[in-house]
Amino acid sequence: MTSTADEVAAWWATSVSRIEPGVIEYRGRPIQELIGAITLPELIYLMLRGSMPPAGHAALLEAAMVSGADHGPHAPSIAIARMTATCGVGLNSAIANGVNTLGDVHGGAGQQCLELLDDIVSGADPASVVATVRYFPGFGHRFHPVDPRREPMLRLIRQAVDDGVIPGRHLAAALAVEEILGPRVPMNVDCLTAIIYGELGFAAPLARGIFALSRSIGILAHAWEETQQGRRIKGPIPPSILPEYRG
Amino acid sequence: MTSTADEVAAWWATSVSRIEPGVIEYRGRPIQELIGAITLPELIYLMLRGSMPPAGHAALLEAAMVSGADHGPHAPSIAIARMTATCGVGLNSAIANGVNTLGDVHGGAGQQCLELLDDIVSGADPASVVATVRYFPGFGHRFHPVDPRREPMLRLIRQAVDDGVIPGRHLAAALAVEEILGPRVPMNVDCLTAIIYGELGFAAPLARGIFALSRSIGILAHAWEETQQGRRIKGPIPPSILPEYRG
Amino acid sequence: MTSTADEVAAWWATSVSRIEPGVIEYRGRPIQELIGAITLPELIYLMLRGSMPPAGHAALLEAAMVSGADHGPHAPSIAIARMTATCGVGLNSAIANGVNTLGDVHGGAGQQCLELLDDIVSGADPASVVATVRYFPGFGHRFHPVDPRREPMLRLIRQAVDDGVIPGRHLAAALAVEEILGPRVPMNVDCLTAIIYGELGFAAPLARGIFALSRSIGILAHAWEETQQGRRIKGPIPPSILPEYRG
Amino acid sequence: MTSTADEVAAWWATSVSRIEPGVIEYRGRPIQELIGAITLPELIYLMLRGSMPPAGHAALLEAAMVSGADHGPHAPSIAIARMTATCGVGLNSAIANGVNTLGDVHGGAGQQCLELLDDIVSGADPASVVATVRYFPGFGHRFHPVDPRREPMLRLIRQAVDDGVIPGRHLAAALAVEEILGPRVPMNVDCLTAIIYGELGFAAPLARGIFALSRSIGILAHAWEETQQGRRIKGPIPPSILPEYRG
Repeated sequence: MTSTADEVAAWWATSVSRIEPGVIEYRGRPIQELIGAITLPELIYLMLRGSMPPAGHAALLEAAMVSGADHGPHAPSIAIARMTATCGVGLNSAIANGVNTLGDVHGGAGQQCLELLDDIVSGADPASVVATVRYFPGFGHRFHPVDPRREPMLRLIRQAVDDGVIPGRHLAAALAVEEILGPRVPMNVDCLTAIIYGELGFAAPLARGIFALSRSIGILAHAWEETQQGRRIKGPIPPSILPEYRG
Repeated sequence: MTSTADEVAAWWATSVSRIEPGVIEYRGRPIQELIGAITLPELIYLMLRGSMPPAGHAALLEAAMVSGADHGPHAPSIAIARMTATCGVGLNSAIANGVNTLGDVHGGAGQQCLELLDDIVSGADPASVVATVRYFPGFGHRFHPVDPRREPMLRLIRQAVDDGVIPGRHLAAALAVEEILGPRVPMNVDCLTAIIYGELGFAAPLARGIFALSRSIGILAHAWEETQQGRRIKGPIPPSILPEYRG
Repeated sequence: MTSTADEVAAWWATSVSRIEPGVIEYRGRPIQELIGAITLPELIYLMLRGSMPPAGHAALLEAAMVSGADHGPHAPSIAIARMTATCGVGLNSAIANGVNTLGDVHGGAGQQCLELLDDIVSGADPASVVATVRYFPGFGHRFHPVDPRREPMLRLIRQAVDDGVIPGRHLAAALAVEEILGPRVPMNVDCLTAIIYGELGFAAPLARGIFALSRSIGILAHAWEETQQGRRIKGPIPPSILPEYRG
Repeated sequence: MTSTADEVAAWWATSVSRIEPGVIEYRGRPIQELIGAITLPELIYLMLRGSMPPAGHAALLEAAMVSGADHGPHAPSIAIARMTATCGVGLNSAIANGVNTLGDVHGGAGQQCLELLDDIVSGADPASVVATVRYFPGFGHRFHPVDPRREPMLRLIRQAVDDGVIPGRHLAAALAVEEILGPRVPMNVDCLTAIIYGELGFAAPLARGIFALSRSIGILAHAWEETQQGRRIKGPIPPSILPEYRG
């Protein structure tokens, strides 16, 4: 190969996968050895981290992903996918539009929470960290008085700590924050998943990235349901109601 | 509630999930009973179909999703996600841009193949169906002389037929097509996954929808690798090479 | 340059623009000569067609783009952009989500109408063309009994025909279709803009492409208004109304 | 109407447009009076600001939008749109993917520059503002030794100041910054457009929003050129070059 070809090949260098004629490897493992042999959470871990997960880690990742898959049509990610699906584009575009909304406000709380928990795990004083933010991401919920995902998630996490699967430092950090914030601002699903991602060693931006994978499942289910109903060009409200004009 | 409220509530009616203060149910099942209890492929099946998968079905769905997760930077879905990740948007937008490309040409072959296999399973003559299309979607590969995913996928599917897990009618349809097309146009991963989706009873558009979920995993892994490298505003080729001007 | 560099440069060959260090040309014209010298519709025409528009053509293009810029929050493209803008992403992503919805159903009627008008202009019998479709795209409106854009658009188009600016063949085709469909299914804005794009010589897919540019203006205005209101994670309906659960 | 209907109507209240059966108004002006009567930059100004632009303002807005419409396939927004157009989705999705990339890094420099210029115009000391940032957005260019858009843009802006069309305060702020940064870091197109947007009174986020409208024009032209070439599933580099594997 010429040096130009080398330069171009280097521009797209990757250690995620090797794709050559007749060869497909994910993270150095031939696809033939993976198909039928690894689970989806193991695949996600392998692709993002470069190695297979330690015992017990895939199950926690799976639980976190189950917990965030859907939150109904009040969630912009869900409603937008449903509306997009009525406009004459494929399910791929409906999913894309839904996932695209998972920004700093709608899908970023887990990432923001994990950044702060990481600070505490690295030695920062919980009260000092709490004092730096107006609202602590991942705590309280505008909709659920008690988040029904809290107890089963906490139980799983605690069991994993007891079993030596994870060290429990992010759990301790979150509990310390919850103690400071008081009983009316309990941890919500964003914090609970952030604890898991942190305990498993994921970087904070992946809290958002993995949430996007998880929410994609609910997005697809809703977009597909909408497709089957056959409505065309679905607006947010029935046509009989006109938006108020304030000009 | 007033009739207007009923009308608005009906506009967004859904049987996918029930979300009320303190209540989260997926397909009628409280989230508390799902977290830690079901796997990701089971979740995907439940959300899309409304019930838990029969024995053996989740494993086949999982294998199909492992097989399509990544195909490296030559795939527009992967390259576009990497480039988008360098532009100052979140991983959510990088994933969205990658998934959005999975249209009729890049991600639609599985859906198109399943539609044709469904026709054959419903009684159409394989040779007649083959005669209606210029290229049979899901057969042949522009890159791999032999698709390394073919053997492990076929082995799994055949085993499932032998075990009575699936009826084997979509497999038979695909083998009949392969027989007609000849040894130089073997089934590729799009057909192999279409067989699985068809055997499991998924509607053809979900072949594309589930592929989008699968490919999202590879998209995220690549976008994240690119993010960590720190390059900004990544174009498709090194800056030293100027696109040819043909004006 | 090596042949590899040539191959890579050819892969990205374009006649739209020439960008080299110190050089920016659009369609062979130095940017210095364009800034302050051409209007936006002239720019759009130049970029899409490769030459400057004949006299009178830019004004018709401009009128078409004004007519489709906004249709309020009942349009998914508008509502989705507003909702996306509340999720913590930039205006770029709000626009992208809105434009992405302009598929075959929501934004494709102009393209579909132009394809049929092109057939008639090429010699097909209007009645035969009408007979091939269940609904003729670009005629009738589910919302407006009379589309208020009809008269001013028709007046402009007729004046341009009288002035010899355009030949009037697409106008004649559309009027012939309207005659056949009857007074209760008058041409709507999609047909009126399709007439203009056809008269100006644009290929049918650009009816959708240019509509996307036009609608982007309304999308941005709505996304920006929403941003200023400061609401976070805006769902389609007030939180007090729960979607009906039909499981 | 019931109070529920009022609540729902208020949820989607807007002063951008009024759409009722038979009525389309943009910012309180009937569409009949706008079609054929206003130009595209006037429309953009009207939709974003709520009133028609003062004399001379639309021409400056138009010049700014011409300057940023295209920067060739090295720009991710352009390359991604071209690649997306080969994947079997509509031009709407190709545009969406291109616009979606215009984030903080690829399309945000104008917004960031305007925020800093606004600070200076509001009384902050230029040297102090310069000292707060590592790189001043809108100055220097990684590709052009001299940005060919600089002279024609500056000439237009200066003429407008001389003619009393704009006050010239953002121009003065930018010139003060340029003086401090020195001749090797001249203002680039992001600063030049930021000056115009600032002089016209646009809020900083609209520097990105209007840039998205402008760049959409180049994105569409490139996506359309790619569509016509007929290549399918276009990756970033020729298939003969394999990305380097670094696993």
